[in-house]
Amino acid sequence: MKALVYEHDGQHTWKDVPDARIQEPTDIVVQVTATTICGSDLHILKGDVPEVTDGTILGHEAIGIVTEGGSSVRRVKPGDRVLVSCITSCGSCEQCRRQKYGLCTGGGGWILGHTIDGVQAEYARVPFADTSVYPVPEHLSDEQVLFLTDVLPTAFEVGVLAGRLAPGETMAVIGAGPIGIGVMMTAKLLSPSRIIALDMSDARLERSLTFGATDTVNNAGLTAVEILERIGLPDGVDLAVEAVGTPATFELAADLVAAGGRIANIGVHGKPATLHMERLWTRDITITMGLVDTHTIPQLLRLVQSGQLHPELLASHEFALADTTEAYEAFGNVAASNAMKVFMQAVPAAVPPAMAGAN
Amino acid sequence: MKALVYEHDGQHTWKDVPDARIQEPTDIVVQVTATTICGSDLHILKGDVPEVTDGTILGHEAIGIVTEGGSSVRRVKPGDRVLVSCITSCGSCEQCRRQKYGLCTGGGGWILGHTIDGVQAEYARVPFADTSVYPVPEHLSDEQVLFLTDVLPTAFEVGVLAGRLAPGETMAVIGAGPIGIGVMMTAKLLSPSRIIALDMSDARLERSLTFGATDTVNNAGLTAVEILERIGLPDGVDLAVEAVGTPATFELAADLVAAGGRIANIGVHGKPATLHMERLWTRDITITMGLVDTHTIPQLLRLVQSGQLHPELLASHEFALADTTEAYEAFGNVAASNAMKVFMQAVPAAVPPAMAGAN
Amino acid sequence: MKALVYEHDGQHTWKDVPDARIQEPTDIVVQVTATTICGSDLHILKGDVPEVTDGTILGHEAIGIVTEGGSSVRRVKPGDRVLVSCITSCGSCEQCRRQKYGLCTGGGGWILGHTIDGVQAEYARVPFADTSVYPVPEHLSDEQVLFLTDVLPTAFEVGVLAGRLAPGETMAVIGAGPIGIGVMMTAKLLSPSRIIALDMSDARLERSLTFGATDTVNNAGLTAVEILERIGLPDGVDLAVEAVGTPATFELAADLVAAGGRIANIGVHGKPATLHMERLWTRDITITMGLVDTHTIPQLLRLVQSGQLHPELLASHEFALADTTEAYEAFGNVAASNAMKVFMQAVPAAVPPAMAGAN
Amino acid sequence: MKALVYEHDGQHTWKDVPDARIQEPTDIVVQVTATTICGSDLHILKGDVPEVTDGTILGHEAIGIVTEGGSSVRRVKPGDRVLVSCITSCGSCEQCRRQKYGLCTGGGGWILGHTIDGVQAEYARVPFADTSVYPVPEHLSDEQVLFLTDVLPTAFEVGVLAGRLAPGETMAVIGAGPIGIGVMMTAKLLSPSRIIALDMSDARLERSLTFGATDTVNNAGLTAVEILERIGLPDGVDLAVEAVGTPATFELAADLVAAGGRIANIGVHGKPATLHMERLWTRDITITMGLVDTHTIPQLLRLVQSGQLHPELLASHEFALADTTEAYEAFGNVAASNAMKVFMQAVPAAVPPAMAGAN
Repeated sequence: MKALVYEHDGQHTWKDVPDARIQEPTDIVVQVTATTICGSDLHILKGDVPEVTDGTILGHEAIGIVTEGGSSVRRVKPGDRVLVSCITSCGSCEQCRRQKYGLCTGGGGWILGHTIDGVQAEYARVPFADTSVYPVPEHLSDEQVLFLTDVLPTAFEVGVLAGRLAPGETMAVIGAGPIGIGVMMTAKLLSPSRIIALDMSDARLERSLTFGATDTVNNAGLTAVEILERIGLPDGVDLAVEAVGTPATFELAADLVAAGGRIANIGVHGKPATLHMERLWTRDITITMGLVDTHTIPQLLRLVQSGQLHPELLASHEFALADTTEAYEAFGNVAASNAMKVFMQAVPAAVPPAMAGAN
Repeated sequence: MKALVYEHDGQHTWKDVPDARIQEPTDIVVQVTATTICGSDLHILKGDVPEVTDGTILGHEAIGIVTEGGSSVRRVKPGDRVLVSCITSCGSCEQCRRQKYGLCTGGGGWILGHTIDGVQAEYARVPFADTSVYPVPEHLSDEQVLFLTDVLPTAFEVGVLAGRLAPGETMAVIGAGPIGIGVMMTAKLLSPSRIIALDMSDARLERSLTFGATDTVNNAGLTAVEILERIGLPDGVDLAVEAVGTPATFELAADLVAAGGRIANIGVHGKPATLHMERLWTRDITITMGLVDTHTIPQLLRLVQSGQLHPELLASHEFALADTTEAYEAFGNVAASNAMKVFMQAVPAAVPPAMAGAN
Repeated sequence: MKALVYEHDGQHTWKDVPDARIQEPTDIVVQVTATTICGSDLHILKGDVPEVTDGTILGHEAIGIVTEGGSSVRRVKPGDRVLVSCITSCGSCEQCRRQKYGLCTGGGGWILGHTIDGVQAEYARVPFADTSVYPVPEHLSDEQVLFLTDVLPTAFEVGVLAGRLAPGETMAVIGAGPIGIGVMMTAKLLSPSRIIALDMSDARLERSLTFGATDTVNNAGLTAVEILERIGLPDGVDLAVEAVGTPATFELAADLVAAGGRIANIGVHGKPATLHMERLWTRDITITMGLVDTHTIPQLLRLVQSGQLHPELLASHEFALADTTEAYEAFGNVAASNAMKVFMQAVPAAVPPAMAGAN
Repeated sequence: MKALVYEHDGQHTWKDVPDARIQEPTDIVVQVTATTICGSDLHILKGDVPEVTDGTILGHEAIGIVTEGGSSVRRVKPGDRVLVSCITSCGSCEQCRRQKYGLCTGGGGWILGHTIDGVQAEYARVPFADTSVYPVPEHLSDEQVLFLTDVLPTAFEVGVLAGRLAPGETMAVIGAGPIGIGVMMTAKLLSPSRIIALDMSDARLERSLTFGATDTVNNAGLTAVEILERIGLPDGVDLAVEAVGTPATFELAADLVAAGGRIANIGVHGKPATLHMERLWTRDITITMGLVDTHTIPQLLRLVQSGQLHPELLASHEFALADTTEAYEAFGNVAASNAMKVFMQAVPAAVPPAMAGAN
């Protein structure tokens, strides 16, 4: 089979590799029909994720058809179309039993394309299938569900739910990339009165308006006080979601939040941030952070089925699965491509998906 | 009347001042029968709290007898013995209606001994009496309820409840001063399996054992990893309560907490802390902070009545109200006095209160 | 002044009465600019509410202009336009402090048009004004906010919030009268995947579709099993809201709910219901019931301001305040009028409000 | 092997049966070292549980040693001592993933001694072992953990946690049998100020006092009003736990609860109850009911380890595993034996367990 292999020093190649096969009775093998690229894949290529060793197949988001199932797999069978969660759940450790799959201590967590081979491939082995994949309702297309594997559960769980958003509240979303856009899409399920998108790219901000932002602010060169004044909320917002991952944006979140408010961090951080406890200690603030668990996948699937969520709108570009070089180039060079998420499919579609905001 | 007046440059004097009197229809005047000193009073004397102007009467914790009530006061009347909350609540702003009295925007919050005259005095004016004082059940002594004015609600609300402690969990309390001891006392109401007291004073740690600590660690010179190893919890504790207020102790809290755990900050901070987001972002941590609201005073009163809480044990020293110089000296010089909380009463008691841990 | 007075034996008259005036320092008097009729007013006229004595002015929902304020009123002043909650909150009893205003033990609760004179009058006295009325933002019309006095908070608090509705869930609303319609309107704020309206009137069901119902079932003669089969949810719904108030509809709610689901009762009951504990005890069901507290009025006001809630659509008929006879006739005879809510205003509007569903 | 087999018409025999053996890769076989009898076993013998067919081995509570494990069992291995939950969890259905194991749709739920052979036997097959059994810490005896298989999780989850008990609240426990006693034991973990035990047996009530009851009332012939007057709580209790299972006791619970309170039903009901909605609809009451999930077993194990919970005190009588006739006789005839729970062990202990309250 062919797969996208991480070589070393940022190199990756679409090449022949040994076929994926069952190793444990709880495994399945899926034929990948759709996959995508995540910001963390770019981090891996930069060498920021040392756990990834040379020769590892990349990718942790996929839709596929089950081709083979281990002897104890009960919930899916060959021929089933399944959504493969980016987080593998052993299903039986104490963390998994509390739906903290991202903290799985039984061999799961983020392992696909990280500590084991991933899904940017023609076929992939998925461990703990009964608790890590979800059957896709027949009438939903791959496009409609692919982004439920990672970006939308992340946005919803780590941003919206951890941030305890309630109807009528105000929120700021710092960073209007795919995750920030996902936060806006899923925040709308809970009817905030204001969703303020902050970014330094006007193109991203303009796109935010089609995904639920009620206000946009290009925050380049602006202080938190200036931002709050501009949006007419001098006391701050009820919820600030950090979706960038830098000390500056984290500290901006802390400066934007009202007394009694919440800061939900989603950003992947490489450096420490400064927490101004000398100002914050009296302000009744809650700060949350964490990996996605993907426990909301069934809930989000229902919302796609009922027409209340349109994940396919996140796809700005489409590629054949084999055209990985082009796909990584588009996703990795947003300034040029204005890419949000790429949709990669096994057999190129005759008709392209919805191209929201694509140029 | 006599009162303890903040002069300037750390000076304070017990001296004659004009009598406290009703200014608003929602005010009461109380004759103070018992009061105490808080760590924040020491901060004021050091000049750290610039809102306190020369001539202000200090103190925000008192038990007293109502001597006069404004025309619209309905819930207490002259002669009633009342507990005066350290937090004044207007009762009608949106924050107060959500029990966030510490964030009151209607003229309350921490005002006594801060922005208006306080209660280390023979008499004191208390604004918004209907929502800021609580009748004391007749059979409870001043000693039994004085520490429900501030230290125990702070420990319970900002430490234990904000930290969402559940039965069987493990917790660390960083700082075994009065607040830390209050955390241990009120944490026991929710039956954690382990309460680990951390401090650099062996005397304080030894005293912790009589207030609910199951383990003590003198953390001088120890890393978080060494501490966790010593207590046999290498993965960390479910809840870390910061009750000191320095960057080092805050960062220690972050290093002690297990994946999926909570950090509850109570400490009063004067400097920023470093938050190691590069390590924490995946760990599903929640950090809380905030002023006390004292909304649990009725609940804590019931627990004192039922014999499940013994606040009087916090009193290590007793003074007459007029002996403020001696009281501040004892409370301010813990190394010499080993003081926890001082109990100051209008008429010296013939029999001293329980002197837990006093030397 | 003129007011609608309950005489006896179902009689009511619009007639001259003594002017409303301040009695307590916490009172205000408002000039009523808009009011409406509630199902409970009809109950009073039938003699079902014995606490209402002859000569009482009816009505507990109003918008008005403050004409006079008691000496301790701080948050509103003469000239302010205010929303008068159907529930009066003393603001200082233990129930009010926990936002359980409907259970107020300090002299509030449902008193307007019940145990004291109400608001279907040219002027009305409103006790505990600081915690019982809310300033109306200038750019919102009376029509836009009148139904936040009772019907929408009731629907939202007692139906949607008590029922812990979450995005993607399924719900049944039994009874498509004004309250049931209010449940559908406010449920949409939380994005359920299905809202099934049940009623025996096809006209009401048809109207439900414009207020958020995704499905309608005329349940006359149908069993719960047949209903669930018809809507394709054989296992039941996640939430069943009872908005009628009969034993049969309550028992239907219990039969419609899925294992693990919730039943939220809003209906006003006059008779006991049978609870089939022999079937329910294993099914992990939660049943809630209670008077509205109206603690969500500020939240709902924000949602009207942001354009996410359109309470004015509940008004099916409009009358001048003085035309109470006609208004009661229309509201009391729904079969003939197809009325939902009536909008009564002090000075007849030149242009009628949105007449959703009126014929 | 020998086992207790349900014959028909209330007959049961300890006799030879085919050996328990692995049927699915997720099964284990355990050698039972300790087991007990549940009230539902008595219901089965009375013929009230028609799903139980002739020839079924009874019993759903056991401690045992793993003798064999299916090919996909990962978390336990032969030789491990395990606690067998009364509820089997498939671990992968949507209910199990939300910790609603009692509602398992994947083949689990209450199946042991019900729809498949149970554990009152020398050996037993346990399906879905990885998510249905728990390793027992070495230093804990069988006596200390046996009652964590059913009675204590039931009391804690369905009574205390569903009832949302908070420190300082008041509660009534209707029925002082094993479940009611378990409610008292686990309620103490959350420090209610009053635990009022109600029963018609003075012996049971007296025993309640040693398990945490602060008050006891023999409610034979008393109305709810009289009971509340006697205990000095005329407004009712915050939480009423029903632990009997009759219409009369359920209705008593509804009459004892204060406005704003909760009713938690644990009792197994065979008949409908009357719910006085005409009185309750305004009172802001929450009623919960449901099978145990046993998701708190790990939490309760930690509390046993830390010495905060002493389940062994529930054992009033001890028998050898083979002496099932005597054990059922003692447990089934409480009036004569005053039995609470029986402790049956494979090899009779030389020293009897703690005989709390046994006469």
